[in-house]
Amino acid sequence: MAAGLAGVVSTRPADLDTHGRDENHLDSVPPRAVVFAETRDDVVTTMRWAGRHNAALIPFGAGTSAEGHVVPLGGEVSLDVSRMNRLVALCPEDFRAVVQPGLTRNGLNTRAREFGLTFPVDPGADASLGGMAATNASGTTTIRYGGMRANTLALEVVLASGDVLRLGRPVRKSSSGYDLRDLFIGSAGTLGVITELTVALHPVPEEIAVLRAFFPDVAAAVAGAFAAVGTGLPIARLELLDEITAGLLAQDVPGLVPDAPALFVELHSSTAAGLATELDIAHRALLEAGASTVGTATAQAEREAIWEARHRLFWSIRRAFPGRRYLITDTAVPLSAIVEHAQVISELRADLGLDVVTTGHVGDGNIHTVVAVAEGQDAPAALFSDELVRHALRVGGTCTGEHGIGVSKRQYLAAEHGDAALWMARVKGLFDPGNVLNPGKVVGPDLLSDALAAR
Amino acid sequence: MAAGLAGVVSTRPADLDTHGRDENHLDSVPPRAVVFAETRDDVVTTMRWAGRHNAALIPFGAGTSAEGHVVPLGGEVSLDVSRMNRLVALCPEDFRAVVQPGLTRNGLNTRAREFGLTFPVDPGADASLGGMAATNASGTTTIRYGGMRANTLALEVVLASGDVLRLGRPVRKSSSGYDLRDLFIGSAGTLGVITELTVALHPVPEEIAVLRAFFPDVAAAVAGAFAAVGTGLPIARLELLDEITAGLLAQDVPGLVPDAPALFVELHSSTAAGLATELDIAHRALLEAGASTVGTATAQAEREAIWEARHRLFWSIRRAFPGRRYLITDTAVPLSAIVEHAQVISELRADLGLDVVTTGHVGDGNIHTVVAVAEGQDAPAALFSDELVRHALRVGGTCTGEHGIGVSKRQYLAAEHGDAALWMARVKGLFDPGNVLNPGKVVGPDLLSDALAAR
Repeated sequence: MAAGLAGVVSTRPADLDTHGRDENHLDSVPPRAVVFAETRDDVVTTMRWAGRHNAALIPFGAGTSAEGHVVPLGGEVSLDVSRMNRLVALCPEDFRAVVQPGLTRNGLNTRAREFGLTFPVDPGADASLGGMAATNASGTTTIRYGGMRANTLALEVVLASGDVLRLGRPVRKSSSGYDLRDLFIGSAGTLGVITELTVALHPVPEEIAVLRAFFPDVAAAVAGAFAAVGTGLPIARLELLDEITAGLLAQDVPGLVPDAPALFVELHSSTAAGLATELDIAHRALLEAGASTVGTATAQAEREAIWEARHRLFWSIRRAFPGRRYLITDTAVPLSAIVEHAQVISELRADLGLDVVTTGHVGDGNIHTVVAVAEGQDAPAALFSDELVRHALRVGGTCTGEHGIGVSKRQYLAAEHGDAALWMARVKGLFDPGNVLNPGKVVGPDLLSDALAAR
Repeated sequence: MAAGLAGVVSTRPADLDTHGRDENHLDSVPPRAVVFAETRDDVVTTMRWAGRHNAALIPFGAGTSAEGHVVPLGGEVSLDVSRMNRLVALCPEDFRAVVQPGLTRNGLNTRAREFGLTFPVDPGADASLGGMAATNASGTTTIRYGGMRANTLALEVVLASGDVLRLGRPVRKSSSGYDLRDLFIGSAGTLGVITELTVALHPVPEEIAVLRAFFPDVAAAVAGAFAAVGTGLPIARLELLDEITAGLLAQDVPGLVPDAPALFVELHSSTAAGLATELDIAHRALLEAGASTVGTATAQAEREAIWEARHRLFWSIRRAFPGRRYLITDTAVPLSAIVEHAQVISELRADLGLDVVTTGHVGDGNIHTVVAVAEGQDAPAALFSDELVRHALRVGGTCTGEHGIGVSKRQYLAAEHGDAALWMARVKGLFDPGNVLNPGKVVGPDLLSDALAAR
């Protein structure tokens, strides 16, 4: 099958195995082959080959997604762009970098820090920047800096036809034409393959501190988060950890109290005086909202220990509940509904008798739960996730704040978007009429055939 | 023609006249009729009527656009949504409002201020929020708060088919499906008619001050702006006024010096201590960059006088150069190219012997010029605009930072976007196959027929 293919083609079992899973789908479904593209032309050639042979392709970056985006549904070829990992240009005067899609966020940050700059989007994993744009990733710092949509100025993409498009311009603003860039951000490789990105960099904050606030229960902690946002302070991170999470991370994080739900509130300022005043305002708001104690971490090592432990959380959960299957939810709701949403989680957990860990970027209304699913708990775990998503949709929320639809959330696309889901399928049909690119992801096969039949 | 039409239909000469122009196209090209829609159903009914009768519609809000978006090209019906101007809901806890498209930004701000909130997007004119979303408007505060794209959470749109879609969700983040919301933002009524918006509100800043810095020439002032951005401070506004502008506004703005190019730098902070430190940093950066003097305005009346005068500038220019035609440019370039771009303006002005006023949201790299075109200067004025756009495109910029393509900038769509312009035309063909919605705007007829022929 390799005739006419570019890049390095592998059918080694180890390569097939690693390209058949993601961080949350651990049982590998191996692709037919892996093509390691080393240049944009490799991507174009592979795309043309796929078109001629009616083969399906799955773009693959670091494999750190959570909703099955990169997991084959049957017979696809994995198009791995991780070797396209160059920093093409770093323009400190313009606060931007041009990168290939395989460069990871940590790789970019190592280079950006030399210029006092940072790429703030932080989904936890050291994801590839192309994959982060493809899933519209965000994370802990989104409340202040926005996610990939806000921090991606321009994309180069290769369409199923092999055409190369440049979407967006490396400027801070433009009203020129239709916004195809944002259409491709979050499209999970179903509309095109990202071969270059221009991303925004930000000055490393001069002054940083983290408040650690502890609460009697999760609902109180969520209410505290809501109060913190209500201060209007430019909060940089606002993370919830339930009592189980606190227990799992306590040994790594100084000052964390096992069994007490916690909020971490990070503030960035350009001045020490400003930071001190902001800390004071946030401190008082958290106490008034019911925090039992509030402490402050300003030393870099202490602050970094918090976020490193937070990023390792999923692995800590696996260690704490070995041999389980892990079901992750990623709902986001309007801030005014977040206390109620947290109560729904707590009630479902109790009613269904599940082991559920709750964390979240609560300043954005985004809550993650991880259900550690024991033998025989598949049905209640599925019910938990379904009820949670349906509550989020009822209050105006979304089934996925940052992970994406992938495969696991396809069933909610129409429930969330109504007739707009049918138009998403028509857009898929326009850009990829042969359904070559990551088929079955985001837009399921039924929706796609409905959309194409109705035209 | 009114059979089957909803809303109030007018063919009064005064209505036709006001719906045939915008702020920059003063000679009216009257539409065939004006339909004043009062409800979403009126819009749906009018859209279906247009489809049956092969009539073309131009959505119309406040008529404050600048690139001919709302000006008929021949025989269109104006679909005026200005009577759909209700504040549907204001949710202070979620920092958002739901509005009808005809509500203006000042109308929204009057209500939001009661809750200590503000809608920060400020294009100068009291534009309708639907029109602002349709053109992806931004303005003086974009450097801090973003433009319409960053501040619009969700849209309700009516398609040419009469289908009603809801795009986006009223949450701070979502990775659910394709981003059709951003496709419609900036599409200038060519893909659908916006009938409702959910927009973001922000806390009114606790502490505000404006620095006024004066420079020996425009290039020095632009270099000063670049230095101010380089401080990494969270600047809220950063506006350039050339010496002509300073002269025009001096009588209205305390502290303005005629004949001296100026920068206005506004800082917002949640604390007085933070603001004082930030002002000090900005002050020093401006002096080091070559400012001759730097003053501070903190009193509300003094600050507001600055921005009110800035917003009236276009009218001041008309008074200063009466009987002229006015050609507006709206290029935006990467920050590192902005000094060079300002030099190009200055050289073109001298070479072509034109009266050119230069201002701009220079913190975003966005410069506006107004050419006051005298009798017989049409050719040099057109050359000025063309050379300026081509320079912007050469350095990676855009032909329009915030006004939109409309009619006047259609010729640059392909130059700026390459093959992506053809795909924009295909997207137009997908959503509006009968070319009913604002035909000829954004995507010109040649590009549209190329795109549809090539499929």
